[in-house]
Amino acid sequence: MTQQPPRPETSGTPTSSAAGTRLDPWLGAYAERTHGMRASEIRALFAVANRPEVVSLAGGMPFLDGLPLEVLSGVAARVVAERGLQALQYGSGQGDETLREQILEVMALEGISAHPDDVVVTTGSQQALDLVTRVFVDPGDVVVAEAPSYVGALGVFRAYQADVVHVPIDADGLVPAALEATLARLTAAGRRVKFLYTVPNFHNPAGVSLALERRAQILEITRRYGVLVLEDNPYGLLGFDREPWPALRSYDEDGVVYLGSFSKTFAPGYRVGWAVAPHAVREKLVLASESAILCPSNASQIAISSYLATCDWRSQVKSYRELYRERRDAMVSALSEHLPEASWNVPDGGFYTWVRLPEGLDAKDMLPRAVTARVAYVPGTAFYFDGSGADHLRLSFCYPTPERIREGVRRLAGVVAGEHELVELFGTAGGGGEHEVSAPSPDVP
Amino acid sequence: MTQQPPRPETSGTPTSSAAGTRLDPWLGAYAERTHGMRASEIRALFAVANRPEVVSLAGGMPFLDGLPLEVLSGVAARVVAERGLQALQYGSGQGDETLREQILEVMALEGISAHPDDVVVTTGSQQALDLVTRVFVDPGDVVVAEAPSYVGALGVFRAYQADVVHVPIDADGLVPAALEATLARLTAAGRRVKFLYTVPNFHNPAGVSLALERRAQILEITRRYGVLVLEDNPYGLLGFDREPWPALRSYDEDGVVYLGSFSKTFAPGYRVGWAVAPHAVREKLVLASESAILCPSNASQIAISSYLATCDWRSQVKSYRELYRERRDAMVSALSEHLPEASWNVPDGGFYTWVRLPEGLDAKDMLPRAVTARVAYVPGTAFYFDGSGADHLRLSFCYPTPERIREGVRRLAGVVAGEHELVELFGTAGGGGEHEVSAPSPDVP
Repeated sequence: MTQQPPRPETSGTPTSSAAGTRLDPWLGAYAERTHGMRASEIRALFAVANRPEVVSLAGGMPFLDGLPLEVLSGVAARVVAERGLQALQYGSGQGDETLREQILEVMALEGISAHPDDVVVTTGSQQALDLVTRVFVDPGDVVVAEAPSYVGALGVFRAYQADVVHVPIDADGLVPAALEATLARLTAAGRRVKFLYTVPNFHNPAGVSLALERRAQILEITRRYGVLVLEDNPYGLLGFDREPWPALRSYDEDGVVYLGSFSKTFAPGYRVGWAVAPHAVREKLVLASESAILCPSNASQIAISSYLATCDWRSQVKSYRELYRERRDAMVSALSEHLPEASWNVPDGGFYTWVRLPEGLDAKDMLPRAVTARVAYVPGTAFYFDGSGADHLRLSFCYPTPERIREGVRRLAGVVAGEHELVELFGTAGGGGEHEVSAPSPDVP
Repeated sequence: MTQQPPRPETSGTPTSSAAGTRLDPWLGAYAERTHGMRASEIRALFAVANRPEVVSLAGGMPFLDGLPLEVLSGVAARVVAERGLQALQYGSGQGDETLREQILEVMALEGISAHPDDVVVTTGSQQALDLVTRVFVDPGDVVVAEAPSYVGALGVFRAYQADVVHVPIDADGLVPAALEATLARLTAAGRRVKFLYTVPNFHNPAGVSLALERRAQILEITRRYGVLVLEDNPYGLLGFDREPWPALRSYDEDGVVYLGSFSKTFAPGYRVGWAVAPHAVREKLVLASESAILCPSNASQIAISSYLATCDWRSQVKSYRELYRERRDAMVSALSEHLPEASWNVPDGGFYTWVRLPEGLDAKDMLPRAVTARVAYVPGTAFYFDGSGADHLRLSFCYPTPERIREGVRRLAGVVAGEHELVELFGTAGGGGEHEVSAPSPDVP
């Protein structure tokens, strides 16, 4: 059936015709941005880390075993049986209107008042990150972000050839004076700062939240410098000991693009997130999304919409909060017991603990030895645009059970002790090499 | 709950704080590419065209009423009940491996032999178009495409600031001599041609297919010039009178990126498409997709995978072929009866007829009058990068019933007759104005 065309001698393309060859005949044809795309060095390790004998404290997968699958199965059946001609068809580029109204109810828990027309439904909030960056960032533009920042956002900024400038955080989140100093310096240097990227609640990876009294301060500064705020808030409803704090968007509807997601409060498999943006920006986001995917999945949107309408989603969020609090407790007590020479924060929500290693240890160099000892984590270098942060690592407590978390920390402590010994003997634990930020991987959201 | 922060007098951002204002305080902050994003002028008309009293021959929505919704409802229920912890979780950035294996079976019908590792699952093949363009195109690079070309692809190329150069087609598709002349001219001018974008089967909007004997010729030319081929093939299995022809990818696995979709052969609501690419390109596409969306929806992928595994999808494709053939017949006979002064092709598959208007008529100028007469179409200008093509219009026969198609063409003929009269009287039917290519809209895939 497949007639082979003649292969001319004068071929302009190198003829690496053997299947499976790793030569790349198209290397010279890639766009400039593509040369910055690299698979993470730690990716191969994660393939190993996904083996059942390894305790993975690396991934950001929510723990879904508590979901009422029988009930959700019924929801899925009705979506197709009763609304199949809509669920299986193309839909609006902006997203289903009923779902957009329901998203307003979710956001009202964080003090946000908006109109359904302000909302754009996206393929997970990762797509919203991509769209906002696409709409605002030219190569060489600056994005200001916390130090550290979500690895998946840094990957997007790199993909659009942005330059990320980090601003320090402390236990109360982004430091206003440091933000002001950074914006003043960048402005004086004539740099084009396109937005401040921030995860104000239960930060990934740092676990901290932006203190209430800082929220207005941060917005006063960004407004003064004419800088948009990109508020990424997947964990805002997952506080362990308190009700949600008002979102930055609740203070300022013109200066903030807000990103939300059902991935952590319900389930990530439908890939439904959203952006709320000022009107003109929202119009650009819809055009950009239509170009990127035509429209988000109606099947997914209607499934989420039916879940919100017919199930007690507030109770589900509450049960997640209790589940993750128990795991946070297991993580923190295991760290106290096994790794007293490290330091860490006690997050009051979300998925992550941010651990500072004892002096002289390098989290990236140590990772292969940790995986050999059957425990995995994400080295701090992933969360800095310039690859610094090797003195930190991110431990996630969302997916493993409390028993596995304790076992993982115990194994990690053994690895740290071994490294420590090497450092004391030789002044270094060996390894080293380049640090870099890579594209996000689905097992590290 | 929402404390209003002080609004400093020295604000760097214009304070258009009133909700609903159409001023855009962020206009100066957009990326260069964003200034090329515009809502289509015909978009507002399509909002009207979606009213039930209007016969829309504009949209590219498949006709889903024949799908076995009860059976599919059972599939959806089992996906969540039996595989919920996987379906609702994050998945691989490349896509579900079982689904990628099944995609190979689908592509085997067009003579493609590949490995599951060559396949990337995407959020509809629109996302695959976006990813390939992202990976290859720098601003100012050239994409060569048929004249006319799919509006949604032109929107993507514009979003990445490509320059599209059209190559003429005839009844046998892309004209090899014209392609060769174009590539020679562009090469001589020192232009960087990144790929040839082609819809070889049942072309959107032109309805033609690339003749079998031309397939090897086209590939010989692109290979000689070192130009990649982007083969977009959503309609290949929907031939009315013949079995599928071998895909371009079946001739050349190193020089072709192939795009496929379940949107037309099954249903678009899950948003599942795919790309098949040479190994190194495939790696880049996965990295780009992880940056764009982290991973495609597991819920959607497993639903499609279960459908392919448990339902007779080949019979479903066959019934679509028969359904659309009947509608094609209705379209062609109505055109013969009511619009003999126009000319058109008789497509032997797919969704579209490409109609040339009588001399002097402008399809874009005429559209508002057509919508007033309760019939809608897409003017030919949408399918040319430079906005030419006003002498053509695209009529789709996929969604309306044969009766509605006949009624729509009858109404269209009335509008054409009225226009014709004006032209004969005044030499023009009025209107005019700029033509442009806009981002695709979900109702015009």
